[in-house]
Amino acid sequence: MSIMQIIDGKLTAATIKAEIKAEVENIVAAGGKRPHLAAILVGHDGGSETYVRNKVLACEACGFQSTLLRFENDITEQQLLEEVDKLNRDESVDGFIVQLPLPKHISEQKVIEAIDYRKDVDGFHPINVGRMAIGLPCYISATPKGILELLRRYNIPTSGKKCVILGRSNIVGKPMAQLMMQKQFGDSTVTVCHSRSKTLKEECLQADIIIAAIGQPAFLKADMVKPGAVVIDVGTTRVPDATRKSGFRLSGDVDFEHVAPLCSYITPVPGGVGPMTICMLMLNTLAAGKHLYY
Amino acid sequence: MSIMQIIDGKLTAATIKAEIKAEVENIVAAGGKRPHLAAILVGHDGGSETYVRNKVLACEACGFQSTLLRFENDITEQQLLEEVDKLNRDESVDGFIVQLPLPKHISEQKVIEAIDYRKDVDGFHPINVGRMAIGLPCYISATPKGILELLRRYNIPTSGKKCVILGRSNIVGKPMAQLMMQKQFGDSTVTVCHSRSKTLKEECLQADIIIAAIGQPAFLKADMVKPGAVVIDVGTTRVPDATRKSGFRLSGDVDFEHVAPLCSYITPVPGGVGPMTICMLMLNTLAAGKHLYY
Repeated sequence: MSIMQIIDGKLTAATIKAEIKAEVENIVAAGGKRPHLAAILVGHDGGSETYVRNKVLACEACGFQSTLLRFENDITEQQLLEEVDKLNRDESVDGFIVQLPLPKHISEQKVIEAIDYRKDVDGFHPINVGRMAIGLPCYISATPKGILELLRRYNIPTSGKKCVILGRSNIVGKPMAQLMMQKQFGDSTVTVCHSRSKTLKEECLQADIIIAAIGQPAFLKADMVKPGAVVIDVGTTRVPDATRKSGFRLSGDVDFEHVAPLCSYITPVPGGVGPMTICMLMLNTLAAGKHLYY
Repeated sequence: MSIMQIIDGKLTAATIKAEIKAEVENIVAAGGKRPHLAAILVGHDGGSETYVRNKVLACEACGFQSTLLRFENDITEQQLLEEVDKLNRDESVDGFIVQLPLPKHISEQKVIEAIDYRKDVDGFHPINVGRMAIGLPCYISATPKGILELLRRYNIPTSGKKCVILGRSNIVGKPMAQLMMQKQFGDSTVTVCHSRSKTLKEECLQADIIIAAIGQPAFLKADMVKPGAVVIDVGTTRVPDATRKSGFRLSGDVDFEHVAPLCSYITPVPGGVGPMTICMLMLNTLAAGKHLYY
């Protein structure tokens, strides 16, 4: 039996950001343009504020230019669409994001579809979703891209393996399934389980790789995992914790304490998939700066 | 043990075409516009000629207007893109297709992406592929849509069932997986197997529903199928047959003779999924005529 290894997302993300910074400095030294990420933030949601701040900090770490555009909650859909259009036409901006969620009176889907897909570094535009599904070059959204990157950098074999994905959300489960089944990415036998699955435990017990993105703290128990399996935990549910200053802690979808000893590789929460997501946004921004998907 | 039932795609397709025709006549009687499908055919490939002829005949059966635009094999990519653009701008045309394959000097992907997604009744444009993947209203391509329709019309339960898809092609396996996993369509536990899968037989033996789209004649044998399973055969490989005037017969991916007695439902080849595809193009054209996805 091999030794269990914890996949260090924080370290991997730091390594990738250093790689990006080195490449950016090379580009700039050769007379090229510094990649420029813009972000639109509507309102004052605490979570969104934190995410956007961290994205701006990551831009600095990578040597990117960044621009933050803030609007109040009472911005109309039409006004926001006009701001998106300005960024589409602004040649100095290589890629941009609109931080979600948006106020209820604005259609998120309409805003996403208004973004020029060539600047859509979040990878949420249907053109990018569709191009990813059929294996064409495109922006891949942060979480699935980050998981692929962790598997790759830890040299975890995926081809021909049975990969079980728990959850079928549009931002994790579905794209993850599409990527893990494709020859040029996971090349795995992929099973997607969800709330209606009658054989979820049996599927998990057969899995070489389990990607848990179901949003239920400690859902995946030790009796659902085959010895030697690789477990990727995408869950980040806030659970009350009086011992923390914040009053909560982040809980993954995996019962880490009991599952980890069984695994060949496992991601912790926090410090696993989480730190990779902003880092993948940075990789997408680097690609945008190079006009890689034009 | 229940009795095996053969799913009659030919009869189902005829029923749907009659339903479409009735709806079209209602639309026209109410002063509405007759749906209009245009098709671009490049060159003289025998298979393409047959497909396009059958599409034109199906349009007649449905009460649609149809237009066939023919070009020789030496048409340039630029000229073809201009023809696509004309159809995009032609308000009398509700939907159109470019019959594939195209000559080698023309990028099929470029042509597909040039089609206005609102007229893309084949459902191959990345916007439609992407919208389908995230469960938004859109044109769904003919083969997966036809399979969903057969399951629905035969009242075959899919929710919570284990569905194994053999093959990961862009036109069948991948979209089929996306649809079968979504709540509003199959709602199944979906597994995609392919050439690199090490546990294909085990997966099949656990399946309530098997959708075979692997392109290998009689690949699915009786010892891979659980009694009572539903088997959908998408294979249509031409195999030499000296007893036929054409010199060949169509073979499915399923060893029908030995698998059928085990099944609760099974599609034959020919006469199963095949006849549904053109019929689904007609349903998409009807939707185009109603501007359903504008």
